Amino acid sequence: MRHSISVPTLLLDQERCLRNIKRMADKAATNQVSLRPHFKTHQSLTIGRWFRDFGIEQITVSSVRMAQHFVQDGWQDITIAFPVNVLEIRAIKELASQISLKLVVENPEGVAALQNAKLTANVFIKADTGAGRTGLGADQWDEIDTLTEQIKAVHNLHFKGFLCHAGHSYKARSKKAILEVHHQSLEIMQQFKKRYESTFPQLVYSIGDTPTCSVADTFPDINEIRPGNFVFYDLTQSQIGSCSADDIAVAMACPVVAKHLDRHEIIIYGGGIHFSKDRLVLSNGQTVYGQLVSPSDLSWSITADTSYVRSLSQEHGVIAASPEVFKRTKIGDIVYILPVHSCMTADLMKKYQLTNGHLIDDMLQY
Amino acid sequence: MRHSISVPTLLLDQERCLRNIKRMADKAATNQVSLRPHFKTHQSLTIGRWFRDFGIEQITVSSVRMAQHFVQDGWQDITIAFPVNVLEIRAIKELASQISLKLVVENPEGVAALQNAKLTANVFIKADTGAGRTGLGADQWDEIDTLTEQIKAVHNLHFKGFLCHAGHSYKARSKKAILEVHHQSLEIMQQFKKRYESTFPQLVYSIGDTPTCSVADTFPDINEIRPGNFVFYDLTQSQIGSCSADDIAVAMACPVVAKHLDRHEIIIYGGGIHFSKDRLVLSNGQTVYGQLVSPSDLSWSITADTSYVRSLSQEHGVIAASPEVFKRTKIGDIVYILPVHSCMTADLMKKYQLTNGHLIDDMLQY
Repeated sequence: MRHSISVPTLLLDQERCLRNIKRMADKAATNQVSLRPHFKTHQSLTIGRWFRDFGIEQITVSSVRMAQHFVQDGWQDITIAFPVNVLEIRAIKELASQISLKLVVENPEGVAALQNAKLTANVFIKADTGAGRTGLGADQWDEIDTLTEQIKAVHNLHFKGFLCHAGHSYKARSKKAILEVHHQSLEIMQQFKKRYESTFPQLVYSIGDTPTCSVADTFPDINEIRPGNFVFYDLTQSQIGSCSADDIAVAMACPVVAKHLDRHEIIIYGGGIHFSKDRLVLSNGQTVYGQLVSPSDLSWSITADTSYVRSLSQEHGVIAASPEVFKRTKIGDIVYILPVHSCMTADLMKKYQLTNGHLIDDMLQY
Repeated sequence: MRHSISVPTLLLDQERCLRNIKRMADKAATNQVSLRPHFKTHQSLTIGRWFRDFGIEQITVSSVRMAQHFVQDGWQDITIAFPVNVLEIRAIKELASQISLKLVVENPEGVAALQNAKLTANVFIKADTGAGRTGLGADQWDEIDTLTEQIKAVHNLHFKGFLCHAGHSYKARSKKAILEVHHQSLEIMQQFKKRYESTFPQLVYSIGDTPTCSVADTFPDINEIRPGNFVFYDLTQSQIGSCSADDIAVAMACPVVAKHLDRHEIIIYGGGIHFSKDRLVLSNGQTVYGQLVSPSDLSWSITADTSYVRSLSQEHGVIAASPEVFKRTKIGDIVYILPVHSCMTADLMKKYQLTNGHLIDDMLQY
């Protein structure tokens, strides 16, 4: 398959990907929580269908247009896990008339826009369990009470529950640190539950990040998990401790265009417009934009070799190569590289080539 | 115009853009060097045509597919300023049969591929004048002699000259530092000239980065300049000293979806898939992903306000807002943000909305 590649290409190993999906689906089943996977990572109709084989009927997306994309493929139960953008209220109303739509609010303006539009939807309140990006924390009861009352007062809105994303798990660098974030996040969700379960006994408590969902074995008081990145994983997740490098289901295939012996550097066709400029700082202080793996007949394998992408410009990548990799790599070869952040790389590449050669070309286009 | 925006949108101020093009075209004319602008920044057919009004007939691109894109709009003289990718030799040969094609090589494998394909093209040798990414330095005469001999021996190849990109100018943080890079780069190009002008008297000496081309007033012994980013500029260029903030011709327009008073943060719809994850570290150590500007009727204006984008996730941006900006910005407003790296932002956004409302939708699609 490598012989047909001439430009930077995003490879997808379907077997690894299905293994990742199955593992998460099994864990959700064991814990009797719903798995509502976030589709922002893959954004593809085909890959979305792979989830159906594991019984998944409910999904999460990060934008209105991403919801529209998956509605066209028959998805009928979608959470847009992003604060309601009041400027898109017409498109949101149209979606709400087509499917069972779940929305997320965190301020009165969001609820007021839904009310004015007279749309019918389920509404989550965004809970901040420590990430400090969006949502309301367990010290903001007045604001939360105001929101719950406001939602309750609108006939067509159904207060569905609390939804959080413990994004601070991305700062962890061990399973232990991930579990600390998980327990802290659960504790805050339990505070929400304690306060609201008598008034709203049927609420859903939904959590979302890939690190905690990958590492935790139990989800007490949680009804739903919404991880997304786990479908592919990436170097960052492997560094955090969410997965092993062998779980990573995507790799960039890039042509070698130059070699510089004095610096032991290999120049590839493959830059920031392919990988994204997202980077990973290793514990030794090294900044990494990708890690080389060894191509195999139908996929790739992880080795002890430490060759990595040291820098990226628009279309060039610079690999700091080990002596062995430098020696055996020739101009015109294709090298395989695990990406730092698969969500960003997939969004840029817009296509997947399966390791069996088949092309997946049905991602959301902007 | 702001009233029609509901999702992250890349705005282009045509007046600022034309001013940037005119300034560079005037400078090239004054110095009697050819301006062969790099089109990788804008990638748009329409914006490419704006250059024609300034007499530009020759352009630079960074990939074979980008060359194909501009050939379809009538460009007949294109330099692909990227080491020949031997895996794309068939597409390169087709281009060479259609237009006056200039290619860049830095190793015998590249020349051999051109020879084997029996294609007709002009060939530059990539010179490394200190950037240390690609190219051969002034201490690698043996390698360069081998290449020049190899090119000369191939009937259909014409050795055109030496081409460099002084990318280390991006590490500068003052006009003085940029000029030091410029002079160092010129000195190395002059060493190339001194060594090869008797054997190859008609060679072209081509330089390329936006910082030195923006700041330098003279280009001794240089025949051609190939800046690209100057068409838009961005926060990085303004920080380097290549331009003023008022020269920046693009801004992201993003909806405000949440506010957090305790942290003085504003949450926008606009993340890494819109801006790119490229970042700028200011002299005070602050990491910045964008800077707020004040919308005006038909464009925007630079103010003393220091509100900036502090972090980006896939679709969210977090603005660290000044008290004034925090107070006057409401949920549902559109804020304008200067991007850190306009090449990357434009590549992601794939469309421009002119400040007069007109849409430009003819960028290279991947």
